[in-house]
Formats: sequence, structure tokens, C-alpha cells
Amino acid sequence: MKLQHSDYMDIALEQAQNALPHGDVPIGCIIVKDSNIVGRGYNTRERDKNALGHAELVAINDACKNLASWRLSGCTLYVTLEPCPMCMGAIINSRIDLVVFGALDSKAGCCGSVIDLNEQSFNHKVEILAGIRELKCQKTLRNFFQKLR
Amino acid sequence: MKLQHSDYMDIALEQAQNALPHGDVPIGCIIVKDSNIVGRGYNTRERDKNALGHAELVAINDACKNLASWRLSGCTLYVTLEPCPMCMGAIINSRIDLVVFGALDSKAGCCGSVIDLNEQSFNHKVEILAGIRELKCQKTLRNFFQKLR
Repeated sequence: MKLQHSDYMDIALEQAQNALPHGDVPIGCIIVKDSNIVGRGYNTRERDKNALGHAELVAINDACKNLASWRLSGCTLYVTLEPCPMCMGAIINSRIDLVVFGALDSKAGCCGSVIDLNEQSFNHKVEILAGIRELKCQKTLRNFFQKLR
Repeated sequence: MKLQHSDYMDIALEQAQNALPHGDVPIGCIIVKDSNIVGRGYNTRERDKNALGHAELVAINDACKNLASWRLSGCTLYVTLEPCPMCMGAIINSRIDLVVFGALDSKAGCCGSVIDLNEQSFNHKVEILAGIRELKCQKTLRNFFQKLR
């Protein structure tokens, strides 16, 4: 049975849980090509003390290694939160076909919330699908920040 | 004797040369804090078959490791070419104070050429200084692409 976008987002949400033990904001990402998961990532910024530790960058790094290519053409990236400029830039640079995200990010989102990087004249256009499992993605983040207070 | 911006850019240009043996576009970057070089990078996209292999990301990764922090406050980043969206996003995310770059990038530059990401309402503003050793940075790139043809 072919998995749906929401099924893959559930797997990205499972990835997000891996961020919690080290106090990182729970954001998860997977990259899928031909129905296979070729990259996985979750937020590791605090754990690794590294500004590059966003879920998408970790997953893109993983996928490039697994596919032995910097071109991720034919891939779909699923992420629980709208990508920031760094991650949206990495998505464009790696030629990913489709980005599916859950919750909007009013502070840093680059698929329309702060800016739509895809509208700019870069050398690759990405297809964007927003709002998949949006409530579950929002709730995962809200729970984390409520416990922090 | 205190080094000037152009001196640090010369060191970034030396980094750029390291990209040539494996056929990568010669772009180099260093990160400086309190007159010390805390991060170094050059373009490794083709060598490592990795979309994240831009000079700035390699240098930011290096600096985060060396300083054991994702916050690079107080740091200046020198790069031979205007940063792309991914790298400018990483610069914003890592709270770098000042970016000094050499050549403009009309295709992907995010300090004004395609878009000015710094003008958007993200949670950190970076100071930008353009055109340091501009001709030498342009020539390094032009020589590379002329030899390719």
C-alpha cells in the first residue's frame, strides 16, 4: 500500500521526538525518493552546539551521503515546521522537487510566512505543500514550549 | 600589527584555492573572533557530493566546533563571494555580527543581488561590508570558469 503525505509526516513527527532528550525544539524531517526514506534528521542545535543542526540540514546531509550526490532531484522533503532561510536555501541548492510541511513559522518561515524564497529568481523552483498534519505538528511544538515555562 | 579586512580576505582567497584540486568552484571563507581565525572553509560540494558543502557552511561548522557554541556572536565572516540563501540563513542563525564579502553573485546573492535577506524581519541583523578585494575575488572565479570551457 502506497503511503500518503500524512503517513510520511507522521514519520517526520517521530523524528521530532528524538530532539527532546537533549532539550532541543522538537522538529523532525525525512526525505523520500521512490517511496524509500533516503534521509532522516531532527533538531540537534543544542545537543551539538551547532547552528547548522536544523532537522532539514541534518536530513539533507544524510540523503546526500546515502545517494552519493549533491543533487536530490526526485526527492520529497517532509518537515514538521516551515523551513527557515538556511533550510529553504539548502532545499533549493539540493534541487529537491517537493517540500511538504506541517506548522507555519511566523518568525522565520521562508515558504510565505516571513518571505517566500521560492518566488525569488534562484535557479531552482520547489513545489510546496503546506499544512499536512498541521495541528499535530503545532501541538508537538506547543507542548515543548509550555513545559519550558 | 592589526590585520585589515583586506588581509583577512586574502586568507579567505587562499582557502578558495583548496577547492581547485577536486574541481570545485574556488570559493573560500574564514571566521574571525578577537583577531583569531576560529573557522575555515572552502567549497567541497563536488568533492563530497554534498549540497551543504559551501565555503561558509563549512567554516560555520568549524567555528561552532572550535568555540563549542552555536552562537557566533562577536564573529566576522569573510567570504570571497556574496552568500547564497542557505549561507546567509546560516549566518543569521549563528548570530554572526559582520559579513565581509568580495565579489557579487548575480545568480544567488542574498546581500542585495537577488534579494537582501538581512532586510527581512528575522530575529538577527548582520552588518554587511561588500566589495573587499572584489577584483581579486572576481578574477579567481573567472579564471576557473574560463579553464572549464
